[in-house]
Amino acid sequence: MPIDPLHTWEAVEAIRAKAPVVHSITNYVVMNNTANALLALGASPVMAHAREEMTEMVGIASALVINIGTLSEKWIESMHAAAEAANARRIPIILDPVGAGATSYRTGTVRELLKGARPTILRGNASEIMATCGDLAQTKGVDSTEASHDALAAAHSLGKSYGATVSISGETDYIVGGGRTIRIHNGHAMMPRVTGLGCTATALTGAFAAVTPDPVLAAAQAMAVMGIAGEMAAEKAEGPGTLQLHFIDALYRMTADDVQHRIRVEA
Amino acid sequence: MPIDPLHTWEAVEAIRAKAPVVHSITNYVVMNNTANALLALGASPVMAHAREEMTEMVGIASALVINIGTLSEKWIESMHAAAEAANARRIPIILDPVGAGATSYRTGTVRELLKGARPTILRGNASEIMATCGDLAQTKGVDSTEASHDALAAAHSLGKSYGATVSISGETDYIVGGGRTIRIHNGHAMMPRVTGLGCTATALTGAFAAVTPDPVLAAAQAMAVMGIAGEMAAEKAEGPGTLQLHFIDALYRMTADDVQHRIRVEA
Amino acid sequence: MPIDPLHTWEAVEAIRAKAPVVHSITNYVVMNNTANALLALGASPVMAHAREEMTEMVGIASALVINIGTLSEKWIESMHAAAEAANARRIPIILDPVGAGATSYRTGTVRELLKGARPTILRGNASEIMATCGDLAQTKGVDSTEASHDALAAAHSLGKSYGATVSISGETDYIVGGGRTIRIHNGHAMMPRVTGLGCTATALTGAFAAVTPDPVLAAAQAMAVMGIAGEMAAEKAEGPGTLQLHFIDALYRMTADDVQHRIRVEA
Repeated sequence: MPIDPLHTWEAVEAIRAKAPVVHSITNYVVMNNTANALLALGASPVMAHAREEMTEMVGIASALVINIGTLSEKWIESMHAAAEAANARRIPIILDPVGAGATSYRTGTVRELLKGARPTILRGNASEIMATCGDLAQTKGVDSTEASHDALAAAHSLGKSYGATVSISGETDYIVGGGRTIRIHNGHAMMPRVTGLGCTATALTGAFAAVTPDPVLAAAQAMAVMGIAGEMAAEKAEGPGTLQLHFIDALYRMTADDVQHRIRVEA
Repeated sequence: MPIDPLHTWEAVEAIRAKAPVVHSITNYVVMNNTANALLALGASPVMAHAREEMTEMVGIASALVINIGTLSEKWIESMHAAAEAANARRIPIILDPVGAGATSYRTGTVRELLKGARPTILRGNASEIMATCGDLAQTKGVDSTEASHDALAAAHSLGKSYGATVSISGETDYIVGGGRTIRIHNGHAMMPRVTGLGCTATALTGAFAAVTPDPVLAAAQAMAVMGIAGEMAAEKAEGPGTLQLHFIDALYRMTADDVQHRIRVEA
Repeated sequence: MPIDPLHTWEAVEAIRAKAPVVHSITNYVVMNNTANALLALGASPVMAHAREEMTEMVGIASALVINIGTLSEKWIESMHAAAEAANARRIPIILDPVGAGATSYRTGTVRELLKGARPTILRGNASEIMATCGDLAQTKGVDSTEASHDALAAAHSLGKSYGATVSISGETDYIVGGGRTIRIHNGHAMMPRVTGLGCTATALTGAFAAVTPDPVLAAAQAMAVMGIAGEMAAEKAEGPGTLQLHFIDALYRMTADDVQHRIRVEA
C-alpha cells in the first residue's frame, strides 16, 4: 500500500475528533449542500451573514469560508468584517471567487477581498483563478473548468503578490503555494453536473485548514477527499441526483482503507 | 412509434450540445434544485441578483428566468434591469408568477413585470395565471393547481394583451400562444409533493427557449420533458424525497426512446 | 398494542385531510428541506419574507413559523409584522431560536421576539433554550445539543414568564408547558448529521399546531413524528445524505401502524 504523502486520513480523523467550527458566508444556491458536506465529514458548520454578529461568530470559528456566488453590497461588507475578525484571531480564511471574470462586479469584489481579507487559500476553477489574476480569461458562467499552464502561471503570480495558496479544481486538481505544486488525480466526470460541488470543495478546505496548519497540505487533503468521495459516490449513482446523496454518505463513511487505496497524488 | 410533433428529443440534444447559459433570478427555496435540474439536462445555470452585475451577466446568457417566489424590493429592481438587458439582446424571458393572487404585492409585481419586462413565456399554475390576468381567482398558497376553462380564457387574454405564450401546469399541461393550444398529459401525481418542481419547469422552459425559437414549442417541450422525467422517477421512488433525486437522474439519463415511448401530447 | 397518549396518528390524518397552510420565515440553509418536509407530511408550506406582504400572507395561514437561523434587520422587521398579524388572527406561532447564545445579536433578537411576538411554542436544543432564558449557557455554533436539568429549569422559567410551551430536542425530547412535561424517546443518532433537521422539527410543529389546539400536545406530536420518521429512514440509509431523502419519504408513507409500533413516550 503506498504511503499518502498528504497525511489525508490523519486529517480526516482530526476533523472527526475535534469537530471544528467552520463559519461560512456563502451563496444561497449551495448553503444546504455545503453545510451537509461539513457535517458529514465531521465538522461543525455555521452560516451567518449579518454585519452585527460577524465578529462574535468568527470568534467561535476555527476557519472562515468566503464565497461570492450570490453577491450583494451588504454581504460584501460582512465578508470584510468577518475577514478582519479572522485575521485578528489568526484563523485561516478560504476565498472562493465564484464566477470571477463573468462580471466586473465579481472580479472587482474578489480583488478587493484578496487585498483586504488576505485569504490563506484561494480556491476556484482555472478560469476564475485566471480572471482573479487579471489575465483576460473568458469564463462561461460559473461552471467553466480548464486547467492549463495559464492557470498555473496565474496561481504562482497570485501566490507571490498576496501570499495565498491557490487551489485549482479540474480534471486534475493543482495546489500551488510556497514554491510547491501538488497534483491530485482523483474525482469523477459526473461531478461537474452537480451544482455547487466546487463550493463544497471550498467548504471542506476550510475544515482541513482548521486542523492542518500548512495551507498547501490542507488544500490538497480537501481536494483528495472530494475526489475520493466522488469516486465512491459514482459507483452507486445513476445520475447527478443520486450522486450528490452518495457523495455526502461517502464523506460520512470514508475509512482509512478508502483513502489509502484510492488516493492518486503527485506531491 | 408515433412521431413527436414537438421535436422534443432534437431540442434535448441541442441543449446537451450547446449547454446554453440560463440566467435565473429565482427564489431561495428552489435555487439549488433548479440549478441541478438545468445541469442534469445539459444547460449551464447562472444565479445572480445584484443590480450591479445584471447587464453583464445577462450578456453571457441565452435565456433569462424570472421567478417571484421570495420577493423583495432590491430583487424586483434587478428583475427589471435584467429584463431590459435581455430584451436589448433579444433573448427569451420566462416569468414565473409564484403565488400571484396570494398577496397584492405579488400580483402587482407580476403585472408590472408583464408590462415592463415583456416576457416571452409566462409559466404558472392555473390559479396564478388567473390571478395574473385579473380574475378573482382564489389561491391557496403557492401550490394550488386547477386547470380549467377559466385559466385557458385567462391565458388567451394574457396572450392578446402582452403577446406572451402562456404555459399552465397541472394534471394536464396547457400551452397557449399564437392561436394554438397544446395539451400535454405526462407527469405523475406525486410531483406536486416536491417543493419547487413548478419552478424547475420554469427553469427548464428557459433552457428549451434558448434552443427552440418558437416559444409555444419551447414551452411544450419543457413540460413534456418535465412530465416524462417525473414518470421515470416515480417508477423508482418510494416517496417525494427519493422522487426528487431520481427526477434529476432522469433528466440526465433520458434517451430518444424514453421520449418517443412516453410522450403524450395533443398539438 | 399500547395506546398513544398523544393521539399522534389522528393529528397526522388531520394534517393530510386539511393541508393547513404553514407560513415560514426561516433561514436560507433549510428553506428547501422544511418546505419538502411540510409537503411530504401533507401540509401546505408558504415561504415569504417581504414586509409588504406579511399581513396578507399570514392571513391565509393556519400557523406561523419564525426561525432566526440567518438573520438580518429587514427580516427581523418582517418577523415582528408577521407575528402581529398572527396574534390578531389567533393562529399559533412557533419560534426557533437557532444559535441563540452564539452571538448577542441572536440572543437579543430572540428575547425581543419572545416579548413582542409572544410565541405559542419555543422549539430549540438545550443550549439555545438556556441561552434564551438567560443562563450563561455555552453554545458551540448551532448544532450543540445537551438536554439537562438546567434546560428543563430554563423551559419552566420561560413558560412562566412568557406563557410559551417549550420543546427541547435532544436524545430525549422534552416538551414543557402548562405544568406538564412530556418525554419522547424516538429518533436516531445519525439525525444531527443532517443540517436543519432541528429547523424541520420546528416547521412540523407548526403543522401540528395548526390542527391540535393544545400546544403541549402539538409540540409532542411533532417530535414523535420526527423521531419515528428518522428511525424509519435510518433503516434504509447508508449515511446522512440518503437519510435525509428517506426521512422525507417516511413522512409521506407513515401509517397508523408505524406510529403505534414505534412511539416511545412518557406523558
